[in-house]
Amino acid sequence: MNIAYFNGSYLNKEEVHISPDDRGFLFADGIYEVVRWYEGFFYDMDGHIKRLLRSLKEVRIDWPEAESFRQIAAGLIQKNGLSATPSLVYLQVTRGVAKRIHSFPSPAVPPTVYAFAWGFRPPDEFVEKGIGTIMKNETRWSRCDIKSVSLLPNILSFQESIEAGASECIFVRDGLVSECAHSNVFFVINGVIRTHPESHAILSGISRASAIRLAHQNGLPLVEEAVSENELGLADEAFITNTSFEIAPVVSINGKPVGNGKPGNITMRLRKHFKDEIRMIHAKNQE
Amino acid sequence: MNIAYFNGSYLNKEEVHISPDDRGFLFADGIYEVVRWYEGFFYDMDGHIKRLLRSLKEVRIDWPEAESFRQIAAGLIQKNGLSATPSLVYLQVTRGVAKRIHSFPSPAVPPTVYAFAWGFRPPDEFVEKGIGTIMKNETRWSRCDIKSVSLLPNILSFQESIEAGASECIFVRDGLVSECAHSNVFFVINGVIRTHPESHAILSGISRASAIRLAHQNGLPLVEEAVSENELGLADEAFITNTSFEIAPVVSINGKPVGNGKPGNITMRLRKHFKDEIRMIHAKNQE
Repeated sequence: MNIAYFNGSYLNKEEVHISPDDRGFLFADGIYEVVRWYEGFFYDMDGHIKRLLRSLKEVRIDWPEAESFRQIAAGLIQKNGLSATPSLVYLQVTRGVAKRIHSFPSPAVPPTVYAFAWGFRPPDEFVEKGIGTIMKNETRWSRCDIKSVSLLPNILSFQESIEAGASECIFVRDGLVSECAHSNVFFVINGVIRTHPESHAILSGISRASAIRLAHQNGLPLVEEAVSENELGLADEAFITNTSFEIAPVVSINGKPVGNGKPGNITMRLRKHFKDEIRMIHAKNQE
Repeated sequence: MNIAYFNGSYLNKEEVHISPDDRGFLFADGIYEVVRWYEGFFYDMDGHIKRLLRSLKEVRIDWPEAESFRQIAAGLIQKNGLSATPSLVYLQVTRGVAKRIHSFPSPAVPPTVYAFAWGFRPPDEFVEKGIGTIMKNETRWSRCDIKSVSLLPNILSFQESIEAGASECIFVRDGLVSECAHSNVFFVINGVIRTHPESHAILSGISRASAIRLAHQNGLPLVEEAVSENELGLADEAFITNTSFEIAPVVSINGKPVGNGKPGNITMRLRKHFKDEIRMIHAKNQE
């Protein structure tokens, strides 16, 4: 059984029919979110809703019920029997179905709203060994802050990393490390954690915000200041953050070790703080 | 009646169901073509097939039957009763249907192939008055040479132009005019027609190639050399080329007139050469 949500209804995923006139299909004219279910709660649903509202505003898609993503996500977990399973919920909102012309449909049409959930095996063992990455010059557009489905550049770069035996692609824009194909990236240089500040060049990741908050809460020095390509040799540690990897050590870039080529201490402390917080929320929920 | 082509079959467009797992919908992981039917022949179908093959190769989508687009397009014209109607045929090929992960499906799945045709009213009267444009810094990715459906940046920029009362958005990349949201752009400076050379920064338009060829054949000086932002004041004429507008004079940029603010002589000569050639092909076909 695989129950999806589509334009107001829950139905078997096989019954979801996207129109070939959907602007999501024709033009990548849509945005998305992926939220993690920790067998009892969604991780920072408020943060996801806030980002969803921002994405919709930036691309000017009108979905007045965006707050209902909370209920949709909960409904999908419940209806798919995933309450006790680590899961992800995906939401996509497009500008809707209309005759193919580049300009926005006029008059406007209702957006297409599609969501589904799936149980997954948290990649902890894999992640904790540390991941390899490749690094290349940015290929994407100038508004990477919008979580759009216009992802072909990300796909091609991510695939390159997989074929190089790595697990992520780090981008460099104008000499500065920005982020990865589907994660944010941090470096530890002289004991200070550094990451690119919020700007049009990066997606403001939910796990990125958590890593920053946890560093501050736990007395680990962190500044939101981009690392230049030239500084990479100085990095003792690196890590990426995203919804499924949480906080994941990076042990190599383009085949060269980062620091001593092993998961770094500061990285693993931060990862432990993240895991501890999850356990704490679980404990609280069970009181 | 509206007959579309979908994965090997002709069927009513309403019966075409795109899977929500289609990578075209989820990731903009696909490419497209639009070819014009001139009531008797497709305009430069060879050029479209060549570009289609190139796009597929660049994004690494395997569609061994790509040459069959000739037959698909002809089938759509015939089945929709469009033989005597100015029409367009749209083709989209995506990497297919697979569980949502960023990397390519492994093992590979068959691509999704979708095409449809529609009659349209050639916008000659509108075009011949000359169109207004806006100009802005490039927002798109670094591989604009690939005709991908990852079009959100184009959509947002084109919509901006419409809302400014204009009909196209011209992009400037690193100080050089590249192309438009869905057309190529040319300028006439000191009697010489200039346009951005083929590169990753522009889509190699079929009508662009025709305009260049027709200029050469008719003794109009043309060089493929980008115009810088600083040179724009020197332009006596400007025009854009694409499949539906063919060759269309540009009379203003950001509200400022180009030259004397009227369609230019060289532009209209080139447009006439294009129209003459269409008539000639018609005549030949009727011999």
